[in-house]
Amino acid sequence: MMQTPLIAALQRIVGEAHVLLGDATAQYVTDWRQRTHGQALCVVRPGSTEEVSQVVKVCAQAGVSIVPQGGNTGLVEGSIPQDTGQQVLLSLRRMQAVRAIDAHNMTITVDAGVVLQSLQKQVDEAGFLFPLSLGAEGSCTIGGNLATNAGGTQVVRYGNTRDLCLGLEVVTADGQVWEGLQGLRKDNTGYDLRNLFIGSEGTLGIITAATMRMYPKPAAQLTAWTAVPTLEAASALLALAHQHLASALTGFEVMNQQALALVDSHYPHLRVPMWQDSPFCVLLEASDSESESHARTLFERLLEEAMEQEMVADAIIAENLKQAHDLWHIRESITLAQAAEGVNVKHDISLPVSRIPAFVEETDEALRALVPGIRLVNFGHLGDGNLHYNTQAPEGGDAAAFVAQFEGAIGDVVYQAVLRHGGSISAEHGIGTLKRDKLPHYKSPVALQLMHRIKAALDPDNLLNPGRVL
Amino acid sequence: MMQTPLIAALQRIVGEAHVLLGDATAQYVTDWRQRTHGQALCVVRPGSTEEVSQVVKVCAQAGVSIVPQGGNTGLVEGSIPQDTGQQVLLSLRRMQAVRAIDAHNMTITVDAGVVLQSLQKQVDEAGFLFPLSLGAEGSCTIGGNLATNAGGTQVVRYGNTRDLCLGLEVVTADGQVWEGLQGLRKDNTGYDLRNLFIGSEGTLGIITAATMRMYPKPAAQLTAWTAVPTLEAASALLALAHQHLASALTGFEVMNQQALALVDSHYPHLRVPMWQDSPFCVLLEASDSESESHARTLFERLLEEAMEQEMVADAIIAENLKQAHDLWHIRESITLAQAAEGVNVKHDISLPVSRIPAFVEETDEALRALVPGIRLVNFGHLGDGNLHYNTQAPEGGDAAAFVAQFEGAIGDVVYQAVLRHGGSISAEHGIGTLKRDKLPHYKSPVALQLMHRIKAALDPDNLLNPGRVL
Repeated sequence: MMQTPLIAALQRIVGEAHVLLGDATAQYVTDWRQRTHGQALCVVRPGSTEEVSQVVKVCAQAGVSIVPQGGNTGLVEGSIPQDTGQQVLLSLRRMQAVRAIDAHNMTITVDAGVVLQSLQKQVDEAGFLFPLSLGAEGSCTIGGNLATNAGGTQVVRYGNTRDLCLGLEVVTADGQVWEGLQGLRKDNTGYDLRNLFIGSEGTLGIITAATMRMYPKPAAQLTAWTAVPTLEAASALLALAHQHLASALTGFEVMNQQALALVDSHYPHLRVPMWQDSPFCVLLEASDSESESHARTLFERLLEEAMEQEMVADAIIAENLKQAHDLWHIRESITLAQAAEGVNVKHDISLPVSRIPAFVEETDEALRALVPGIRLVNFGHLGDGNLHYNTQAPEGGDAAAFVAQFEGAIGDVVYQAVLRHGGSISAEHGIGTLKRDKLPHYKSPVALQLMHRIKAALDPDNLLNPGRVL
Repeated sequence: MMQTPLIAALQRIVGEAHVLLGDATAQYVTDWRQRTHGQALCVVRPGSTEEVSQVVKVCAQAGVSIVPQGGNTGLVEGSIPQDTGQQVLLSLRRMQAVRAIDAHNMTITVDAGVVLQSLQKQVDEAGFLFPLSLGAEGSCTIGGNLATNAGGTQVVRYGNTRDLCLGLEVVTADGQVWEGLQGLRKDNTGYDLRNLFIGSEGTLGIITAATMRMYPKPAAQLTAWTAVPTLEAASALLALAHQHLASALTGFEVMNQQALALVDSHYPHLRVPMWQDSPFCVLLEASDSESESHARTLFERLLEEAMEQEMVADAIIAENLKQAHDLWHIRESITLAQAAEGVNVKHDISLPVSRIPAFVEETDEALRALVPGIRLVNFGHLGDGNLHYNTQAPEGGDAAAFVAQFEGAIGDVVYQAVLRHGGSISAEHGIGTLKRDKLPHYKSPVALQLMHRIKAALDPDNLLNPGRVL
């Protein structure tokens, strides 16, 4: 690898040890699902906001674009460099400090490179809850969560990452530092820059630190598993759960029979309950500020009424934490079971909750017509209108051939239906590279035009993560 | 008033009856506090989004700028035209339709001109709660609430107007319509345009409709009034209330002795409790999803522990709705009592909750040094870190002379202290014209530069509410 003047300049800023070249860049330039391999001029690992700022400035001077990266766990190939070998990959992982915990303000201020699980743990030790939780929490960073506005399993109560953030520190495209780390719940002094950077996937600025909300720890969490006859019934159960539990409702996950059949087939020891007799199962979680017995009483009342109204055919409430964990483990095993069954076609979509039953009925039918015998693996965060509406080759079919032949056509059917029902083609994963070319077909042209203008205004030389999102 | 070609064009778009000229514009061009009088070329009252779009287009062609206006209840003179008589005031008040109520999605889609109280009522009739509530609710519009990101009394639980909104329809500076009315809880398909328009005070686009969240109606609301010895104690009580009540805590208002003394003096029939023996009182509200007796038990436990820990010296829980209403009425009478006492100097500031005790102690002292005998009237939404930190002339002093002589100097002292403690000079009222010249002194230069770039990108000819915010 040639030691260009830019590399030398970067070495002066962060130290030689933190400019990686050649093979040392491998883990950074490969998508964790091993689907995409990029190539970087180098990987630079700044240790402070000031170093990030200087890195951006020298790259801007050299006209070299930057790909920011957190834990490299994204699902839309948004933080893998292009294969030109001309981009600088800027890893935030060395920036791991907890800058401040403010108990009375219920906030924590952290560097962008703090791993989500570590953030959860440190907030827990301070006596509070940090509610963001998702599969990759052992390696994803809070900076990456913010850049992609990650979702997860407790959105129905606490919102997306966006809703958990009160302040940001951001390095702009010209290397200035916006110090916006105020932990304020109200601030009407101008445009909402914070939310503009959140979810912009590193294309408008580089998030270097954030002030996040902490929540009171619930006294008890309780999990229930129910069999529901239809998606209409699941939707009615959700409405009833909102009424009975109000904001104690922290999880509402729906899974169709096919999804659970795959888990049962690949992981029979998980003993999936009720799946054989029910088209859908729903996992509910309540977080109670009083006690477990209080939560149990609320759950029992809810499920009793739901059974009377025939929304629910059968139900169990976990007796203890282990049982609750086992039930969640089933839900979380669906993706693995799908992978074990073979490669497949996935969609991360959202819809108004009220439109989900009609969307699924219509789209199931269209896909069965397109690929006879197709297996529809449908599950997700119904409480947020977020479905992982996935498909698998027909029983015994060739998975790779199925994906190769039908991925595009299936996507078209699904996304067209999403559009008709007023939904989104990316609920929680973002756009990145993977969905960038789809966006113009499914997003309002006026919105796209506004986005282009904002990008040009904040990054006029297109130096931050070019070719992503837009 | 001359019938310019622009006026004729506007009459063709909205009909002659809806283009107001001369004296007919009076109520629109005068600030409701009667402090500012502007002058408009005309007031145009479109009846549909399409008409708004056409109005914007003909104004853009004529190079004439537009001042959008909702209920004209703003507090920072953001929707009053300049006194040139060359601007078009665009009133959204004719746009009053409820476009859709979606119970299973818990959303309502309304035109921007719907009055907040009417929105509350229609959501209530649909069996849900719309939690935004503020003094001007009888005349302010939801479009204005969104344009200014209004706060109010239940922010501690439900957030600001921003947090209640899931989608917008906006007419851009060139008259295009962005149809972003999706009622989605998750949508990661690009930049967050919604939050950019919210709180931009009509300077980036004109909000013509919105999809707002509805919440389950609480089964019971309960109000308590407590005497607390210090702001530290109030802050500790807030933390304890978060622990005990979690998201059932829907109100937490602090009032200092001077604020309550003014209410007692001007409205003795309101029988303000506890004020004579306590430096501060705190009003707490709980909204319970179960029952009044459940809420009462929670409140009793909380207050018992607070009294044991000497955060609270005395407390009452309202016995019925009338008593609760009476307690809230005291809180809401502070502003009127201040006005009855004479003109005064007001600030709408926010701080990290943890900084409030030190801020108040320090600023009280500095102001007493500046104006011996000054009366410090301090109250607000402590749960959100939002203080209405106001001042009144010394007892028996000349109010007008006090304001004339000290308004500037007092503001400087207060805002400098806000800056030192990491706060905001406008918590919920916005910037408008009133605070525009202050902004460069108290906002990060990087943030201001980003805001200017965004304004130039979305409104390059500076046609939307020029001279406001920036």
